[in-house]
Amino acid sequence: MAGVSSPDLPPAPPRGTTVAQLGEFGLIGHLGPRFAQGPHVYVGPGDDAALVRTPQGHVVVSTDLQVEGRHFRREWSSALDIGHKSAAQALADVTAMGGRTHSVTVGLATPGDLEAQWALDLADGIAEECALVGASVVGGDLTRADEVMISLTVMGACEVAPVLRSGARSGQVVALAGRQGWAAGGLAVLGRGFRSPRALVEAFRRPEPPYDAGPQAARAGATAMIDVSDGLVADLGHVAQDSGVRIDVQTSAFELAEPFHAVASALGVDPMGFVLGGGDDHALAATFASLDDVPDGWRVIGSVLEGEGVTVDGGDYDGERGWDHFA
Amino acid sequence: MAGVSSPDLPPAPPRGTTVAQLGEFGLIGHLGPRFAQGPHVYVGPGDDAALVRTPQGHVVVSTDLQVEGRHFRREWSSALDIGHKSAAQALADVTAMGGRTHSVTVGLATPGDLEAQWALDLADGIAEECALVGASVVGGDLTRADEVMISLTVMGACEVAPVLRSGARSGQVVALAGRQGWAAGGLAVLGRGFRSPRALVEAFRRPEPPYDAGPQAARAGATAMIDVSDGLVADLGHVAQDSGVRIDVQTSAFELAEPFHAVASALGVDPMGFVLGGGDDHALAATFASLDDVPDGWRVIGSVLEGEGVTVDGGDYDGERGWDHFA
Repeated sequence: MAGVSSPDLPPAPPRGTTVAQLGEFGLIGHLGPRFAQGPHVYVGPGDDAALVRTPQGHVVVSTDLQVEGRHFRREWSSALDIGHKSAAQALADVTAMGGRTHSVTVGLATPGDLEAQWALDLADGIAEECALVGASVVGGDLTRADEVMISLTVMGACEVAPVLRSGARSGQVVALAGRQGWAAGGLAVLGRGFRSPRALVEAFRRPEPPYDAGPQAARAGATAMIDVSDGLVADLGHVAQDSGVRIDVQTSAFELAEPFHAVASALGVDPMGFVLGGGDDHALAATFASLDDVPDGWRVIGSVLEGEGVTVDGGDYDGERGWDHFA
Repeated sequence: MAGVSSPDLPPAPPRGTTVAQLGEFGLIGHLGPRFAQGPHVYVGPGDDAALVRTPQGHVVVSTDLQVEGRHFRREWSSALDIGHKSAAQALADVTAMGGRTHSVTVGLATPGDLEAQWALDLADGIAEECALVGASVVGGDLTRADEVMISLTVMGACEVAPVLRSGARSGQVVALAGRQGWAAGGLAVLGRGFRSPRALVEAFRRPEPPYDAGPQAARAGATAMIDVSDGLVADLGHVAQDSGVRIDVQTSAFELAEPFHAVASALGVDPMGFVLGGGDDHALAATFASLDDVPDGWRVIGSVLEGEGVTVDGGDYDGERGWDHFA
């Protein structure tokens, strides 16, 4: 992907088309060609993070926005938890390249009547989460706005070549590191006004991305990797599309822990939906050339085949796939 | 500033204190000590940009937020202009360290009913402005929000040692590169419902930071440098404070161009107020050891003295000093 040049611009959307009508991915499709990539850009837009050559080195970089009411709710999570979760989401993008974050900038927009302590607790959460990977918050910006918005930019480095979304090949295996579906279960519980099972609610409030598993997978020769943020099927779909393959997920690979059964019977839903459609845990999904390459702590969950898209147990999946942030 | 460690936390603000009551700089004072700086951080929060050592090199980084209604108005500026101006504001921070930006990430939060073409025009403006310094937009994030918010993170490199705010010493001279006060004049005009003098309105809509002047000043041995974004007196105040000196500005150094007189007589204000209080031009202010060091294109506007704060023509300045983004 070095020195990507701009393809021609797609035809302009019809006059009056809104961003909601175009959709997140439609808008991205129009935006991408507008940003020419210089020869120093090794990985540009479209993967978990970008990778840039600097005069003597490189930097892996990703930016995440979190908006109150869409990405978090002050009545569901403490400011400390929101800080942890916002940072976790951003840090996981560098992890998913096989890298480790060294530096973070924070932009915070808030209403003027927000309690200052809330902002300080948020900062503590961000700082504590960043400390888990040895990263420093080196700068940022503050401004006033009608809603709380948090913008985090994470910068890191890779020890070995970065692992992109585009390297999966037919015949390889798909593996997962970290919890998957727990946060989605917690969100479902909170959405119904409950506060338990506590393990799921806590998983939603404070995800625990497997930060060490990203560099571990890179060293083990992972061929593709992604941070599961939109939903497992949706994110494996990004890998399938960028790699030109089909990915099949085997549900038998997932043991549903007890809290899933509790929430499933309480809400009358299939708990496998949380596993296949949930994203907030920031698990890592990666492909490896063979079973022998899969490192300790990773669980094989499927296989890479010829074709396109994602199948579940060999068939179409008609459940929730994930999120479009403009839908 | 290498390896800055966290001082003790200041006492918590009284319960119920809002961010507006604490103020932007009050909040920053509470936030700073929360973010421990690792040994790889050469310059942490508090200057125009941070400077981080990476495994083989370094990166200069800064983040800026722009919120509709506070930083820009869609009825005053086109999306293309807002893109140019947002990028200019962010890029100027790296310039003010003596660096050049190579990479940019863009976060965009918008209402769903925003016309998609507006977002695309914004992107074009950002891309065009970044191209002026050879920078690539390498990534970003899109999400929905009630207001339009733009978050830009700029990453760059310095050829020589970065120029901080803290290096001004008594006996040195203060110089300025770029237009100063034009954008503030344009803002005053727009605020009264006028559209002329056109030169000032255009300066507000699309500032022209002197991108080459930052690296030029660094090579010439500038002792301190800042991007004038809050207002000339306010930003020189940051240099004075960080350097432990007084800065005196001589108003005779500024020739007021014709449009200033036109707008001053129309609005009944002293046009020097635009020069001393205005910030949106993103001029660069720097200090140099002697007049001989001041490079071509820079104009001497004052001197560094013992003491503290900023004086104008040797006396106190009681006009508009600049902006507090929570006021």
